[in-house]
Amino acid sequence: MCAAVTKPDGRIKRGEETQSRILQAAIDCIAEFGLGGTTIGRVAERSGVSHSLVIVHFKSKKNLFTAVLRELCEPYEEEWVALCNDEQGDPLDRLMRMAEMELQHASQNPKAIAVWFAYWGLREGTEMYGEIVGPDDLTHTQTLRRLVGEVCVGQSAEQVETIYYGVSSMLWGYLSMVHVGTTPPSPERVLCAIRQFLDPYVSDGKTPSSEPDASAGR
Amino acid sequence: MCAAVTKPDGRIKRGEETQSRILQAAIDCIAEFGLGGTTIGRVAERSGVSHSLVIVHFKSKKNLFTAVLRELCEPYEEEWVALCNDEQGDPLDRLMRMAEMELQHASQNPKAIAVWFAYWGLREGTEMYGEIVGPDDLTHTQTLRRLVGEVCVGQSAEQVETIYYGVSSMLWGYLSMVHVGTTPPSPERVLCAIRQFLDPYVSDGKTPSSEPDASAGR
Repeated sequence: MCAAVTKPDGRIKRGEETQSRILQAAIDCIAEFGLGGTTIGRVAERSGVSHSLVIVHFKSKKNLFTAVLRELCEPYEEEWVALCNDEQGDPLDRLMRMAEMELQHASQNPKAIAVWFAYWGLREGTEMYGEIVGPDDLTHTQTLRRLVGEVCVGQSAEQVETIYYGVSSMLWGYLSMVHVGTTPPSPERVLCAIRQFLDPYVSDGKTPSSEPDASAGR
Repeated sequence: MCAAVTKPDGRIKRGEETQSRILQAAIDCIAEFGLGGTTIGRVAERSGVSHSLVIVHFKSKKNLFTAVLRELCEPYEEEWVALCNDEQGDPLDRLMRMAEMELQHASQNPKAIAVWFAYWGLREGTEMYGEIVGPDDLTHTQTLRRLVGEVCVGQSAEQVETIYYGVSSMLWGYLSMVHVGTTPPSPERVLCAIRQFLDPYVSDGKTPSSEPDASAGR
């Protein structure tokens, strides 16, 4: 952790900084104008670099849009992998930690959520999202499904499927409530709803607190 | 109901048909290319009318986009109002009928869902949605909240709020699962999850069937 990191030479470092500045400008533009309204010219103007330098770095608008998806996924995926590797607690604890991470992430990153919605706002963007983010989404789905199965041990496969889709729809729904709704609930509120939803299927006598720790939020 | 309807003269009727054709073409374009990629020219071409005739009918792109929102809301609102006026059954029955209508509507109208996402895909569209559809959404929210309160009689206001947001996030989430997900569940599945979520708070001894009527779907 404390080992000195060899710094790349100035040119490479400047290139990376420019690339990062372009990506941040693209994220801003996409959140505001959607994919259709985000042009290389607009991104260049907002990032303060020339049109041709954007082309040097990303070749095409499609490449830039793909890079934005990767840029947004990266920190989220890091958190997710860390949670998957954290085997502390029982399946319910692990499931709740993952749900909490997803809800907090959405609550704290409204601009990132606006960008997801921008991709979902046209067919080409939804397909691009499916290609780049789809495999990660599938892994999350499988993990969530497995954990729901472990939490609801003894329930039929049908029942586990219903509970899984219940939890999953609450997590998906929170994104829309943050992005579209005028009064989104706090992440704690939805976390509490998920915990209460799971409660009848938790076999080890754990009980959720009857009042959510969300009295300050909606 | 059986009274003869006076038909408008041919000119007005033709005008209405043209207007309707333009709106349907706009819906197709928006679902495919998003708001940013939908131009008057594209809509004119797809509807088979001239550019200038689209302008005659809708004046501007913004007006056309507003009219699309109204066009999509209308049948949905009619169903909603009919359900609100149908006082058969107890609050749980009424709540479940409304949830079922929303889920079935989403499942059967993927193109309409794609159009909602297109509006949510850029800030201007989300604002337009808020102006035109927001008041209806607010009415639905209030109705749903009231019904949850009636179903969960005897629960604290905090608890009712948590349950309301749980149900609401499942309904919102279903839209995303239909639009973005590769394997969306059946509406029956999510309806079953909502019913099971409410179960511990239903005071009249009603129990949901333990297996959802969704074995044919996901």
